[in-house]
Amino acid sequence: MTTAAVDTYEGKPLAQLFPYEDRPGWRGYIEWEDRPDRKEIVRELLKQRTFPEPPEFQFVPLPTTNPILDGERFKAYHEAIGMKQIVDVSWETVLKEKPNMTHLLQFPYNGETKFDDLMKAKITDNSVHFIRNHGGVPDIDEDVFELSIDGLVNKPVKISMKDLKDPKKFPQVEVTITIQCSGTRRREQIEQYPGDGDELINAPWGEGAIGTAVYKGVPLKKVLKIAAGGVLPECQHLEFIGADTYFKKGEVYNYAVSVPYRKVRMNEQVLLAWEMNGKPLPKIHGFPLRTVVAGYIGARSTKWLYKINALAEPSMGPVQRQEYLYYTSQARTSLGKQNATYSNGFSIQDMPVSSAIISPGDKTVIVHEGHIELKGWAYSGGGNWVERVEVSPDGGHVWYQVDPDDLTEKHYYAWRLWKIKLPVDAEGWLEFCVRTWDSSCNTEPTFVRSAWNWDLHVTSSAHRIKVYSINKSKPATARRLKELEEHGQGVEPLTRPLAFPLEDHELYHANYEKYPREPRN
Amino acid sequence: MTTAAVDTYEGKPLAQLFPYEDRPGWRGYIEWEDRPDRKEIVRELLKQRTFPEPPEFQFVPLPTTNPILDGERFKAYHEAIGMKQIVDVSWETVLKEKPNMTHLLQFPYNGETKFDDLMKAKITDNSVHFIRNHGGVPDIDEDVFELSIDGLVNKPVKISMKDLKDPKKFPQVEVTITIQCSGTRRREQIEQYPGDGDELINAPWGEGAIGTAVYKGVPLKKVLKIAAGGVLPECQHLEFIGADTYFKKGEVYNYAVSVPYRKVRMNEQVLLAWEMNGKPLPKIHGFPLRTVVAGYIGARSTKWLYKINALAEPSMGPVQRQEYLYYTSQARTSLGKQNATYSNGFSIQDMPVSSAIISPGDKTVIVHEGHIELKGWAYSGGGNWVERVEVSPDGGHVWYQVDPDDLTEKHYYAWRLWKIKLPVDAEGWLEFCVRTWDSSCNTEPTFVRSAWNWDLHVTSSAHRIKVYSINKSKPATARRLKELEEHGQGVEPLTRPLAFPLEDHELYHANYEKYPREPRN
Repeated sequence: MTTAAVDTYEGKPLAQLFPYEDRPGWRGYIEWEDRPDRKEIVRELLKQRTFPEPPEFQFVPLPTTNPILDGERFKAYHEAIGMKQIVDVSWETVLKEKPNMTHLLQFPYNGETKFDDLMKAKITDNSVHFIRNHGGVPDIDEDVFELSIDGLVNKPVKISMKDLKDPKKFPQVEVTITIQCSGTRRREQIEQYPGDGDELINAPWGEGAIGTAVYKGVPLKKVLKIAAGGVLPECQHLEFIGADTYFKKGEVYNYAVSVPYRKVRMNEQVLLAWEMNGKPLPKIHGFPLRTVVAGYIGARSTKWLYKINALAEPSMGPVQRQEYLYYTSQARTSLGKQNATYSNGFSIQDMPVSSAIISPGDKTVIVHEGHIELKGWAYSGGGNWVERVEVSPDGGHVWYQVDPDDLTEKHYYAWRLWKIKLPVDAEGWLEFCVRTWDSSCNTEPTFVRSAWNWDLHVTSSAHRIKVYSINKSKPATARRLKELEEHGQGVEPLTRPLAFPLEDHELYHANYEKYPREPRN
Repeated sequence: MTTAAVDTYEGKPLAQLFPYEDRPGWRGYIEWEDRPDRKEIVRELLKQRTFPEPPEFQFVPLPTTNPILDGERFKAYHEAIGMKQIVDVSWETVLKEKPNMTHLLQFPYNGETKFDDLMKAKITDNSVHFIRNHGGVPDIDEDVFELSIDGLVNKPVKISMKDLKDPKKFPQVEVTITIQCSGTRRREQIEQYPGDGDELINAPWGEGAIGTAVYKGVPLKKVLKIAAGGVLPECQHLEFIGADTYFKKGEVYNYAVSVPYRKVRMNEQVLLAWEMNGKPLPKIHGFPLRTVVAGYIGARSTKWLYKINALAEPSMGPVQRQEYLYYTSQARTSLGKQNATYSNGFSIQDMPVSSAIISPGDKTVIVHEGHIELKGWAYSGGGNWVERVEVSPDGGHVWYQVDPDDLTEKHYYAWRLWKIKLPVDAEGWLEFCVRTWDSSCNTEPTFVRSAWNWDLHVTSSAHRIKVYSINKSKPATARRLKELEEHGQGVEPLTRPLAFPLEDHELYHANYEKYPREPRN
């Protein structure tokens, strides 16, 4: 199915057409948007090859390897145009900056925070904050980097990092912001019904595609005003272009998205940031400069940001126009393959209220004495904050409120971690779930099906886990546990039969007499 | 239970202590907040009397009268301090300005838009826009009225209506805004489980406590800046005081609430408005001046606004601090009477996504030919707008999307009316429901219980109606309808037996043979 890559195009070496260091000090960045000639060559090159199919991970168990998925197809796109180095550097950067992640997709790199790390503190450590990249990792020298501002502004301008970081030129802010991938918790939707299955955009994320950091930077609003003389009245959207290379349906692009100017007008909500938790941005998080868009889907927080365009309409980039769309589950006009069009999904920008139980893990066995402790996160976007977290020990009938003292501090744009000790009497398989109420009294639907959508984004229903409860405060249970111990056997695996008779023969006979199997008459 | 009112206090006529026209041209306004002496007298007067209990409408069927509830208790509070005129003027104003409403509570006046009027157009006519008052209706002459701005501002100031309406002094805006009472659709919560039952705050509202108008006025932010020299850095909240009189637990107040300064900073979201749909504010809507707070609970859109206080903390008024609190249904710390405290509810400010089916009516019989048309409204607060409306013909399993052409125009701060023709095959009692998705991908929980809360506010679950479906595209049904017609009998009432045999005797016998009641062996 896959055909071999070539090294030249019309006799010219690809390495010369698309040099790894296109501008001195800008490694792994190739300009596409201003170079239609290059885009045309790529179109031709990609046409000449066939590429591997995306893996059908929605119908089969995921590999237990780490990385879980290989990213074969996107690797092949890069190799087809002579950019294997970008693929290699991406993984080298992961191994250096993010070695201890659940690596979901090797290339473009998508990695999830391991659950222990996720719950360690309100602020996620840079080394374990989740990553969802759409291409390679550019490697740009800060002192030659410059940010261009163009389009519907009074004064198009280029700004060096030195100027941008000069507090005398631009007022600096530090804001605590949770960034969430719209794919967070996607695996719950996949388990219910498979949806659109692109290897890149539908990675089977768990509950760790979310993280919180204190970002330092300058409000974009101020930069537009101070450096570019403000936007023109027609400007309604700000486009962000990243230095990474992105492929879509046989075409090549620089990563490009946009946010409405309405959003930018709120100072603390759209930042140009160069610092993450008091340290320079890691390369894999967008060094030297990225946008951080509070309350929005992570996809708008563009890494390796080198160009801002003030536009009248949203960006034409495929990530903005054709991806991250919210379809319905079942609808007159938009159900899946047979009817989906880009225009019948709506663009995911602000994120809804959502939450997750991080411990105990799903499908675990818990021996307890009438109480089980649960921990997790709760978040809402759109400038709403988390007001209340409720946890149900019975699949969603009774809900216990998390004590306010057991929630981390309230922020306008960040999650709250929570914990609760639930009274649990019943034994056997139980379903626990969590739901959150935000400052707008919005809450989460109770069942996954209620928020299932064709592109499998934004799993916002009450998160559920299955737990096998063994309540040893019950005498019969305590006795049985002791018997197991005496026989040197554990409870797990649950599916393994007990090594000893379930009941003493005489007792069984007596019970049989007392509660006969058939009616007596 | 009720004791008679007195006319004097310590020999002084009440009419002199609390004059109906306290300031010339300000009728029905009595200053309480600046007059602790008056408050003290009222406290004494109220102590001397007993008052009627609130009606137990949560356990018994509501009267079919219009007004449905009398408001006996609040009438008695006013009478006890010699203010019967306020009660009378309130109702006279209703009869003049709002004659065609579903009058829910006679005093303080609470009235709901009739369903036909609600669905007439995107903009609700002033004469039928819902009203939820907390006291009487002040009757203030515009040319003597002035608005005071005080507290944490650089320059406390009084502004006449003439100055406020001068476009050379303050920039004017017109914004389309939906105002919703947090009690909208409360009757669904009441039907499930009774909650806190105060006659005033828990009126059994249906789906008509919501309406949309184009308000003209000036952004509060601009008024604070231009007239009062801006707020001091400590200012975090703006308190709005209305000229109406409000009672709570034996105390008297002017109506007072507040909104955060964060909210005021967004120009188009907090207006001082004097015009509603191109006409001066009706008296009952707050003439000459009110606040309109977009996206928030209606309670913050203070009518007869005569004073703004810039504060460091939210208003101490009971409406802000002790009411409109969102409790949980079942919780460690806040379940109902046995544990409720003010501080374990959170303050309802931004409104969540919600919607309602307005036609057909609940529990109606519909004869159709395989399709039923439904109409309703959909709204979300907090600056979110309605993106998608879905309707289910089967209690919430399959959801059909309303065609975008069948939704009224999108606004940042207003509802969208919708209609849909649903395919309906099944006959008998069906449950239809509607849910809405807003621009943050938030949606409504599927069941009332999911959003049930002790104070019965913000019924935000998918709205459900029961409809008895008679599908006359089915031959047997068409035949039976014809038989009914021949016998001069209608289908309704459903509970009335048919006047003719259900089946021809011979056919019944033949069927009996073919499908015998008992096993043959």
